[in-house]
Amino acid sequence: MTLPIAVSLGDPAGIGPEVTAKAWDARHARRLPPFFAVGDARSVARVWQGPIAEISDPRAAAAVFGDALPVLTVEDAGDIVPGSPDLEGGRCALRSLELAVGLVRTGAASALVTGPVSKSQLYAVGFTHPGQTEFVAERCGIAYENAVMLLAGPDLRVVPITTHVPLAAVPTLLTIDLIVAKARATARGLQRNFGIDQPRLAIAGLNPHAGENGALGREEIDVIEPAIAQLLAEGLSVTGPHAADTLFHPRARARYDVALCPYHDQALVPIKTLFFDDGVNMTMGLPIVRTSPDHGTAFGIAGRNMAEPGAMIAAIVMAAEAAARRSMS
Amino acid sequence: MTLPIAVSLGDPAGIGPEVTAKAWDARHARRLPPFFAVGDARSVARVWQGPIAEISDPRAAAAVFGDALPVLTVEDAGDIVPGSPDLEGGRCALRSLELAVGLVRTGAASALVTGPVSKSQLYAVGFTHPGQTEFVAERCGIAYENAVMLLAGPDLRVVPITTHVPLAAVPTLLTIDLIVAKARATARGLQRNFGIDQPRLAIAGLNPHAGENGALGREEIDVIEPAIAQLLAEGLSVTGPHAADTLFHPRARARYDVALCPYHDQALVPIKTLFFDDGVNMTMGLPIVRTSPDHGTAFGIAGRNMAEPGAMIAAIVMAAEAAARRSMS
Repeated sequence: MTLPIAVSLGDPAGIGPEVTAKAWDARHARRLPPFFAVGDARSVARVWQGPIAEISDPRAAAAVFGDALPVLTVEDAGDIVPGSPDLEGGRCALRSLELAVGLVRTGAASALVTGPVSKSQLYAVGFTHPGQTEFVAERCGIAYENAVMLLAGPDLRVVPITTHVPLAAVPTLLTIDLIVAKARATARGLQRNFGIDQPRLAIAGLNPHAGENGALGREEIDVIEPAIAQLLAEGLSVTGPHAADTLFHPRARARYDVALCPYHDQALVPIKTLFFDDGVNMTMGLPIVRTSPDHGTAFGIAGRNMAEPGAMIAAIVMAAEAAARRSMS
Repeated sequence: MTLPIAVSLGDPAGIGPEVTAKAWDARHARRLPPFFAVGDARSVARVWQGPIAEISDPRAAAAVFGDALPVLTVEDAGDIVPGSPDLEGGRCALRSLELAVGLVRTGAASALVTGPVSKSQLYAVGFTHPGQTEFVAERCGIAYENAVMLLAGPDLRVVPITTHVPLAAVPTLLTIDLIVAKARATARGLQRNFGIDQPRLAIAGLNPHAGENGALGREEIDVIEPAIAQLLAEGLSVTGPHAADTLFHPRARARYDVALCPYHDQALVPIKTLFFDDGVNMTMGLPIVRTSPDHGTAFGIAGRNMAEPGAMIAAIVMAAEAAARRSMS
């Protein structure tokens, strides 16, 4: 029997409930596998007219999925007003995430898809992690440094080697060891989650034109090239350092399976420029499959039937495919 | 009488001659204004079967343009082998540029379009400027710091505030004065060259998520916001600092006329990702109109009839429109 996927609804006042319900609407057209929502069923009912089946056990999800959106309600989220986040909603989002992770960890669900949360609401209720990714990693017993954030669109995957740090800190943080560790984890992640036997990694330079042989910065020569040499010696398929500005047009994208970028915007600018409405964030390096739609709570449009479910649908599809590959291997 | 546009062919062994000739082929389909090439006519004849009319005076260009590509030959470039650059080709490229700039400066041509050159060949023949832009600025009596590099595609214009410098130097180089100077010159340039009365400038943050209120870096608070305040006080239409990763998707692009980015790749990655084959580089802040196709010599495909003229055509169109606007004002 195929296990269902657990989708945490995220902040009940954000667009998470709406895009999850709209994904269910698209279950036939997009051939989606059975999934169930984890959160407060009222947050869905507020923004969507379709059928909801409240369940108390994930095993009930598959049977009802054809006729209704299964929702495993964690607890009352207080008064829910789409677009108006509050502390009770923050608590509900956190408990939804916690329960959904637990269900996947214990084998009651095949994969985790996380809806968007409000970090400020989470912080206000005592959440001490930088974000959901760190929380999930901790619950899986994995140091966050060993988790890898992969952003994926239809024909582009990117990994930022450093993430949420000031730009001025990047040249210091970028070490041979860090690049090697992220590249190894990325290669393994592409094998396990995407079934790519020998993934082709392209590593971007840090400086304009990848440093132009040292004329525009030496990090390519001193750090990135030695890291690439080490990875090649380990048998990985790696190219670079590439000039970032010519790495993301259509013909360039066809030459690799993933681009690793020294810093946040170098990776996030191309993926969000090209695939703003259907980008997926996958955390690799975890014992479980975890994806999320690459957008935020969008409180500004919550409850107005304007949210596009493309990214949530893509996150569910990617999670299902990765879970299926892992269960076969 | 409308003056013709001068197109320097760039390196005779690169794709400049081919894309210039192919632009002439498209003169009816794309309603191109009369232009003439400046360089060695043989570099065109080597890679293109169409009619060439050698001229010795730009005033002859318009009359022959309907029937042949006018070429003002500067001098013998030696043996020309497409794809194999040499010193004589470098000299020819430099003289072509020099003559073309002079013709525009003296009013014999309406605008300058520069074909791609090989910097290493230019350096080898004693060229002391970092690139063609700096050379043109000097010949116009303008300090390079006051010239602004604008990259433009069909629905996006970007300006890098710092350009060819190591990434580690950017946080130090990014000052309030620099941002204000570049933004002023950009606004003036959009008025003069594009006829946009009140240009909407969007300024990107330096750090991920534009610094998240200082949590991911303080340059937004200490440098970019004060610069924006000063520009607003001067009456310019400016927004920001914006998170760079969400600044370039289609709906975001519709909200501004130009995005100013603190560093090279932040500006160049989105424009080259979206418009690799038809991006145009325009130098603003000069007394003359100067554009160039935003690609290199592409020696690897020179002479194989594989070069796409889209960017050259776009550069000619943009130059013609800018020259027409300037002559009316």
